[in-house]
Parts: sequence; C-alpha cells; structure tokens
Amino acid sequence: LRVELITIGNELTSGEVVDTNAAFMAAALSEVGLEVAFITTTGDFPLSIQDALHKAQERAEVIIVSGGLGPTQDDITASSAAKALGLHLVLREEILQDLKKRFAERRMQMPASNEKQAFFPQQAEIIPNPLGTACGFLVRRPGKIFFFLPGVPRELNFLMKENVIPLLQKERKEKFRVRSRTLKVFGFTESAIADLLKEVSPEYFSASLAYLPRFPENHVKITLRGNSIEEVEGNLERLEKIIRDRLQGRVIAADEDTLEAMVGRLLREHQATLAVAESCTGGLVAHRLTQVPGSSDYFERSVVVYSNKAKIQMLGVPESLISSLGAVSAEVAERMAEGVRQVSGTTLGLGITGIAGPTGGSEEKPVGTVFIALACANGTVSKRYQLPGDRNQIQTLSAYLAIDWVRRYFLNLLSGFSSQPSARTNP
Amino acid sequence: LRVELITIGNELTSGEVVDTNAAFMAAALSEVGLEVAFITTTGDFPLSIQDALHKAQERAEVIIVSGGLGPTQDDITASSAAKALGLHLVLREEILQDLKKRFAERRMQMPASNEKQAFFPQQAEIIPNPLGTACGFLVRRPGKIFFFLPGVPRELNFLMKENVIPLLQKERKEKFRVRSRTLKVFGFTESAIADLLKEVSPEYFSASLAYLPRFPENHVKITLRGNSIEEVEGNLERLEKIIRDRLQGRVIAADEDTLEAMVGRLLREHQATLAVAESCTGGLVAHRLTQVPGSSDYFERSVVVYSNKAKIQMLGVPESLISSLGAVSAEVAERMAEGVRQVSGTTLGLGITGIAGPTGGSEEKPVGTVFIALACANGTVSKRYQLPGDRNQIQTLSAYLAIDWVRRYFLNLLSGFSSQPSARTNP
Repeated sequence: LRVELITIGNELTSGEVVDTNAAFMAAALSEVGLEVAFITTTGDFPLSIQDALHKAQERAEVIIVSGGLGPTQDDITASSAAKALGLHLVLREEILQDLKKRFAERRMQMPASNEKQAFFPQQAEIIPNPLGTACGFLVRRPGKIFFFLPGVPRELNFLMKENVIPLLQKERKEKFRVRSRTLKVFGFTESAIADLLKEVSPEYFSASLAYLPRFPENHVKITLRGNSIEEVEGNLERLEKIIRDRLQGRVIAADEDTLEAMVGRLLREHQATLAVAESCTGGLVAHRLTQVPGSSDYFERSVVVYSNKAKIQMLGVPESLISSLGAVSAEVAERMAEGVRQVSGTTLGLGITGIAGPTGGSEEKPVGTVFIALACANGTVSKRYQLPGDRNQIQTLSAYLAIDWVRRYFLNLLSGFSSQPSARTNP
Repeated sequence: LRVELITIGNELTSGEVVDTNAAFMAAALSEVGLEVAFITTTGDFPLSIQDALHKAQERAEVIIVSGGLGPTQDDITASSAAKALGLHLVLREEILQDLKKRFAERRMQMPASNEKQAFFPQQAEIIPNPLGTACGFLVRRPGKIFFFLPGVPRELNFLMKENVIPLLQKERKEKFRVRSRTLKVFGFTESAIADLLKEVSPEYFSASLAYLPRFPENHVKITLRGNSIEEVEGNLERLEKIIRDRLQGRVIAADEDTLEAMVGRLLREHQATLAVAESCTGGLVAHRLTQVPGSSDYFERSVVVYSNKAKIQMLGVPESLISSLGAVSAEVAERMAEGVRQVSGTTLGLGITGIAGPTGGSEEKPVGTVFIALACANGTVSKRYQLPGDRNQIQTLSAYLAIDWVRRYFLNLLSGFSSQPSARTNP
C-alpha cells in the first residue's frame, strides 16, 4: 500500500508552525510497516487542496489528509474534498443533532459556525471524534481510500490510533514484521562510517541501512523486515553485532539511550564517582551529565574555572605552570583533572581546557585547540585535539570527547591508559 | 513568485524526524513576503524525487529542495535532479580540489565517498557552503529557478539567509517592503501575553502579530508591510514600544539576540563580574552564559556543587544549615550565592538549588521546588519557585530564571532588591 499524507493549513506554509502532525502520522504508519511515499503540505485554498488530492490520487492508494475540518471560514477541506472527488456536499442530520447535543451538555447554544461541521461529501463514512467537534471521514474509490482527519494534534493522534491504523491493517494483504534500531556513533564522520560498513550486506539480513548526521553524533539506522518476530530479531542481533564490530567501539548508544546515560551506568557498575574541571566547555560537561536522572549518585561536582584565579584557587593548578605554558596546555589539563579529583575525593577526575573562539587563538594554539585529561588512582593521561567549527561546535565536541573518555576508560578503549594505566602518557 | 519547497529524506517520510527545515525555509521566505504554495516531502528514492520535481515545476516558479546532498549512497538528490531536468551529471574539478583541501587542513585524507559531492548537474551554479562538504547549487529554466540545498539545518539556514533569500529578492518584480521583528518574552504564558496585547491594534501600523511558543520563551512576531523603508521602520519603532511597555520588562531579547548576550552586555556596561553556584541546574547556567563569545570578560567561574560536601567545601555553606534546613532551602541558596561571590571576588554571586526530579521530592518540597539567590555588595535576596514540567524543563526554567535575575537586577526590575538593595529580603 502506497501512502501519501496531505497536511493543510496556512500556519504550515508560512512556517509559523512546524508540521509535527505529518511526523506523527508517518511514525504511526511506519510502526506497522506502512511506508509513506509523499507528504504534501498546502494552505487553506480550495484549488490547492484539490490539486494536492488529484496528485496524491495518481501516486498512492491510501491518502490521509489532516487539517481544515474546523468551524471557521478558513476550514474548507470537506468542501474542497467533495469538489476534487466529484461528490456533492450533504448535510448529515444525525451528526448535526449530535453536535447540538454536545453543546447542550455543556449548557451552551451551538454557534452557527459549527453547523458546517455536519456537512460531508456524499458517500463519506463518518469517523466519530469523541475529543472534538470535527468528525473525521473516509471516502472509498476503486483501489483507493481517502481519510480526512482534524488537525488538532490530540484529536488527530487519537483517530489515527483508534480508527485509521486498525482499518489499514485489516485492508492490507501482506503480513510482515518491521523492526528498526538506531546506532549512535561518535568519533567517525558519516563518510568514514559508510566506508567502514561498505562491505556489510544488509540485504542478506533483509535489512537496509540509513545514515543520519546528528551533530556531533552520526546515526546508523537499521530497518529489518521479515515474516516473524523471531526471524527479525535474530537478523537484527547478527547484523548489529557485525556493525558494532566494524565501528570499533565508537557506537556510544542505541535508540533512546544516550552517551551520558551509558557513562552513568558504567560509573554505577564500577561503583565509581566523577568530578569535572572544565574551562572551555563552560559547564556543558556537567550539564550533559546531570541531565540523567539520578546522576547525583556518581557525579560529585564540576568546577567551571573560567578564570585563571579559579584554576589556581579551586584546583591547585600552580600559577607558574599557567604563566609558563599557558592555561591551554596538556600540563594544566592534567593538573585540573588531578586537582578536582583530589579535592572532591572521587574515583575519576576529568579536566578540559581549550580555545573555543572566536578569539583567543594563536599560531601555535589556534581556535579549536583543546586538551582533555583524565586522572585516576593509577595516574593521569591527556591528549591534544584540534577541533573544527564555530564556538558552539567546539564546545559541544569538547564536551562529548570528555564524556566519551569516561566511557572508553571503563571499556578499556582509551589508548595509552587501558585497564592498568601506569602514569602520564599520551593516548 | 509562487514557491514550492521539497524536503528529501527517509527520516522525514518515516516520521523519525520532524521537518523543521520546511518550517524554517517557509518562515524565512514569508519574512520577506514570499509565499510558499506547496511543500512536498519524499524519501531518498530517485523516481520519487524526480516526480516531486516534475510536479513542482508545473505549479511554482521557485523550487527549493533540501536534503540528499551528503556523501553516502542514500544521498541521491544531485543525480535525481540531473535526471529530472534532463542534464548530465558532471565532475566539477575545482570543487573536488576544494574538498580535498578542507580535509588536508584537518590533516585527514578525504574518504572516497566524499568524491560524489563534487558532481553536479551540467549548468548548475554552485552555492559554496563554508560550513560543510555539501555545496548547494541552482539550476535556471525559462521562468523557473531550482535551488538545491543541504539538509543539515545549520548549513541550510546559513545558505538560505546568505544566498537564496538575497537572490530571490533581486529576482522579484513587486516592490513592497516587508519587515519583521521577533520579541522574545520570558515570564508570561502565551495566553497572558495575548491578553496583555489584546487592545493593541497592529492593523493601525500595517502590521500583524503572531504568537509562537518556544519553551521556555514565548515569541511575539511582528510583521509589517509598507511602501518605503522609512514608513515600515517608523511603524515598527512605534508598535514595538507599545508592545514592550505592555509586557512590563518581560521582553528579554529581540530577533537573533539572546538572554545570555543581553546579560553579558549589562555586566560589561556596569563593569561587573559574575560567579555562579549551581546545584539542580547542574552547569546549565554556566553553559548558557559561556555560549556568548567573550564571556570570560565578566563570567569568572561556576561551581556545580552537586554533592553537599562540595557545597560545604567550596562555598563555605555551614554543614549545620544543610542538616537542619536541607540543601534545598532559601538559606542554602543565599549562602551559595554569597560563598561563590566571596571566594571569587566578583560583583555578583548567583546561587541555585532545587529538586529537578524525577525523584527527591517531598510533600513540603515537591519536585520543581527551586530557590534562587543573588548576592551583591549590598546584601542578598532569594526566592522560592514551584516550577512545572519534567527534569529537563525544570532545569531549563531554573537556569533561565537565574540568568534573568541578573538582567532584572541591572534594570531595577528585581522586586525587593531594586537599585539599592538593603539586606536579605524576599522579592
């Protein structure tokens, strides 16, 4: 079944409102294995709506329209649909009575404008709407079904779930299962991932791969189809393992999971605690870590030491070190990590110092120069990075890198540190 | 000029991603008086993309396509465009060299998959993309222009603003002036704003108002039309003043400006410095403040004192106070503000403590209980808030409130504190 969605409203074509209805409908359909081929959005104009319906009819078997069923003058979907489908618009007396009853129950007189919500194209099958005055309806044509639904998200969602999806599942001949998983990758570019995976054959697992850049992550979405849950789950397990292996520990999380939640679980598992000393990330590391509920169990503190005074005072970074090597240096990052670990008594101390820009760079240390250091009982390691982008991107990348260091530390992926770090080495 | 937008990506037709690009483009176009007639969305399939381009060509003069210009196999917009427009796809050597140079600058070898980003339909005019590897391009046909832009929002937004909009403004025959301004409001609900503005008559200024909720802000967008710049600017100035007056100092910024940038300017103007002690906001206050370039001039440090030990050790909050009143209390917030101000020697100290949830609430102090305190040379004030929403919303609202306190302090809007705060009072 090829599906086309049509969303109607001037607020959509003016960009005032983001079209979450289309995304909601598409997600609800793809959950049951129905693919949306096109989404068309147009304003509240009769000719545009008719045009959209004509075009949709040419290329889809199921057309789902939302919006324009309200009581006001600019709600013209029912009359436009009647014209496009060559049907008369007729008053449905039982719906009119029902509308009047609804208002009476709230001790209100029905406004005259609501009367139009009782007019439908001839032959339309009504889809009752318990949540509002705009009933949905459907019209059948040989090999086609047109659904018309209200645009109020709550009502649309309800009618999709309760009426449209069950009806389409009944109509559908094929019976196959669909399953997807999103692997979140950090540390490889989209094209590097594509290169690493180019010899993976998803077809072999009845699967397809899609690449979605989600700065600073890159997502690999696996979608599988099969005849049974067992088949699909088995294929997912095998394919996911192959992909994870090829991506060399750079898959930081899957689906709804996040890097921060993963790091939180690792800290908890190892009964470890973490303290952070941040300069160029300006609190972003702490902010990301503390977005996880319950993070107070393992996150002890962060000191955002923006000034040199704060670095000296709160972390014991020697003033001489800052004046000789600069606040942005491997040694200062290491002292920050060690200092915050010591003062807070945590298992791990993380230090980040760098130049987020746009100013403050030099030839030797241009904007984007960032040092990250991790201190633990066995020693401290640090590394210099040269990060691309603007201030915001450099801050985001630095924070991700620093948090990912903790993940890599526990998974023995932090080179030069591994399970038994000896002393100051450069990973 | 009739405009049609085409957004491309399986993540859109599957409902995984909400199509904010379409809304962004539509809003940017309507800001300069260009109306979008249709938006078509389709997946990464050559025939679908060609179909969408053919249909758009029938009903619009300007067609703007976004998405599918990336380096991976599923990025097929350029080749599909070439087919739809009957053009050959050709390698543009200068773009290839430029791509290689970009990678070389980051000391990386260009992955083979990026090569395809140097192929364009013959006759295409390249739109350089300083923010990424996917260049945009445009193709002219008699009476039509097709724009092709990358789908990464940041890059799309940049190329729309810098290239597409200016070019369309040049093409356009009609000459009337359109101007818009977005006033960002914090501290009033959308309906409270509508009530406060209900007696404002925007028609009188040839203007219209739109209300856009942008949590935790609410935006009021003014759009004005007129025959000359002078007329439009004059009307904007008068109408904006009326609206700002009615909104009682709750307009925190306009257009691209932000609360943080505004607070930064105020601190700079008053040659004042700020240090922060945050608990429930977990670094978000510092993160927001340090997103502003040059914030190191006035932002001295933040201590994210997630543990009680950190509060006692770094800020001198008396242990007895925490054990008697709890870490979430007006007194602890005040001591945090005073402590961080004293240790860092700044003009102002800001303290935030609260319960972001989902756990940790009690009957007396439910989730969403937040105390904010501001300390200056003349004393300290604090206030208790009961904030709605989930963990993320409570953290965001708390951080906004705290940062807004600094703005209100300098503008003498912080009740109970005003210009000459005397001592500990409850605003």
